[in-house]
Amino acid sequence: MQVIVPFDGETPKTRLENVLTLAERREFARAMLRDVLDAIRDAGGSPLVVSRSRLDLPRTPVSVDARPLSTAVNEQLRASASGTAVVMADLPLVTATTLADLFDHDGDVVLAYGKGGGTNALVSRHDDFAVDYHDGSYRTHLQTTAAIGASLAEVDSYRLALDIDEPNDLAELLLYGSGEAVEWLRDNGFSVDDTGGRRAIQRHTKPIPGGIHPG
Amino acid sequence: MQVIVPFDGETPKTRLENVLTLAERREFARAMLRDVLDAIRDAGGSPLVVSRSRLDLPRTPVSVDARPLSTAVNEQLRASASGTAVVMADLPLVTATTLADLFDHDGDVVLAYGKGGGTNALVSRHDDFAVDYHDGSYRTHLQTTAAIGASLAEVDSYRLALDIDEPNDLAELLLYGSGEAVEWLRDNGFSVDDTGGRRAIQRHTKPIPGGIHPG
Repeated sequence: MQVIVPFDGETPKTRLENVLTLAERREFARAMLRDVLDAIRDAGGSPLVVSRSRLDLPRTPVSVDARPLSTAVNEQLRASASGTAVVMADLPLVTATTLADLFDHDGDVVLAYGKGGGTNALVSRHDDFAVDYHDGSYRTHLQTTAAIGASLAEVDSYRLALDIDEPNDLAELLLYGSGEAVEWLRDNGFSVDDTGGRRAIQRHTKPIPGGIHPG
Repeated sequence: MQVIVPFDGETPKTRLENVLTLAERREFARAMLRDVLDAIRDAGGSPLVVSRSRLDLPRTPVSVDARPLSTAVNEQLRASASGTAVVMADLPLVTATTLADLFDHDGDVVLAYGKGGGTNALVSRHDDFAVDYHDGSYRTHLQTTAAIGASLAEVDSYRLALDIDEPNDLAELLLYGSGEAVEWLRDNGFSVDDTGGRRAIQRHTKPIPGGIHPG
């Protein structure tokens, strides 16, 4: 299955700016992207990265498209065979098993819940389906699916729901992740703080101005 | 399947104290409990509530046990037939489908990830398995399962992973929930704030001292 993976390599993960510098966020975003690409390939998918800027990736075709996310993804959906997936690049908890299950789900449109109401992954097998990414896109995609008369399947997966947006999400990655992104975090001094009755991240090395705002 | 549901009806959900009074937290916790019990029954399970204090529930047996959570649950696990589940009471996103899938999973021990490293739901079919609830209990339960030589299955479900602990979690419930708990939130003035590029909860009625701390 063709799998479109949108990626912003220039100014990724702005809500992590209190804990990571821009250069670090670029490195970390690329590590997450590689984790997602590995999982897609291990699940039998063929990734196509849609990047806002030039990007060199071994083994993976890249389409550079600086237009808004939905426009760029819909262009690729239209150009692809029926039965194409879109998987976000900031899902470092995904495994091949998770994605194989997503790809194998029946349904003209298969949607995976995203934390905060987003749509972190989907499969479209209907020519009239188009994405519309924004806050709360999950509901919009439910409505679109109904409006075009397509059959719907919903995938309930924590690994797909948890996109990495803010410092709290890093704790989940440290707890449940494996792969390059979590290794990058550990190499850069991040760990889970178990003290105080509530889990938070802490950083032991390379303190940056402004410090960590855990919890 | 017998399903143990631990419940604290006296001082529940203390991390919601900035947005709900104690009386409200008690009402809300009971609404979540009823949602979970409904889902268990619809999935073919037989719930047994282990409550820290006296509790009147229609149709559901209640064992009052004020000892620490792990002690109380392990006592019930020992007294139950092999093949018993433990499902937390603060999982109002769970559906009968989610739980039927959990109950049907093969494995001596079946564990469902919890946000923050907890264990929100499990099935034990092994006499030597005992729970040890604390921050990061998921890892402990993985280790216990290995130590007793039991086979392991892991369940990846957002609806099981999302226990309601803090204000941010209410936004997820408002987005993806159905049932008494989300109805209670809406009746008490909560909604999701779509403005500002980031989802947060807001409350329109019954402001309480200290106000809402969204985000």
